[in-house]
Amino acid sequence: MILEKVGKRIKTLRNEKKLSQEKLAFKADIDRTYLAGAEQGKRNISLKSLEKIVTALDCSFEEFFEGI
Amino acid sequence: MILEKVGKRIKTLRNEKKLSQEKLAFKADIDRTYLAGAEQGKRNISLKSLEKIVTALDCSFEEFFEGI
Repeated sequence: MILEKVGKRIKTLRNEKKLSQEKLAFKADIDRTYLAGAEQGKRNISLKSLEKIVTALDCSFEEFFEGI
Repeated sequence: MILEKVGKRIKTLRNEKKLSQEKLAFKADIDRTYLAGAEQGKRNISLKSLEKIVTALDCSFEEFFEGI
């Protein structure tokens, strides 16, 4: 399921960049609990929200979806 | 804006596979008017809906987001 894969990918990239959930949520201008739910694969994220997260992770959508 | 890029990408891939909107919408189990709106960049598509479309286009998310 795509939600779990995307959630794992967000967490992996966030940890690679040594960002806490608070810092990434702040940078992406989204609520921390929303981000936590997304990382657990519990949020059916919209493209606009995903764009905020991917941009805050400093990567392109292509890089983000590598291997997915 | 990601919605326009994704919309264009859906249309390009759909045309490459010589599928009408009706056929792709049927294959993806989504409403044709929803697909039409998505192709025009007017829909903030959710991951689950995008997964239906990408799967119906027979490609991975990585291939779908090539160059985006």
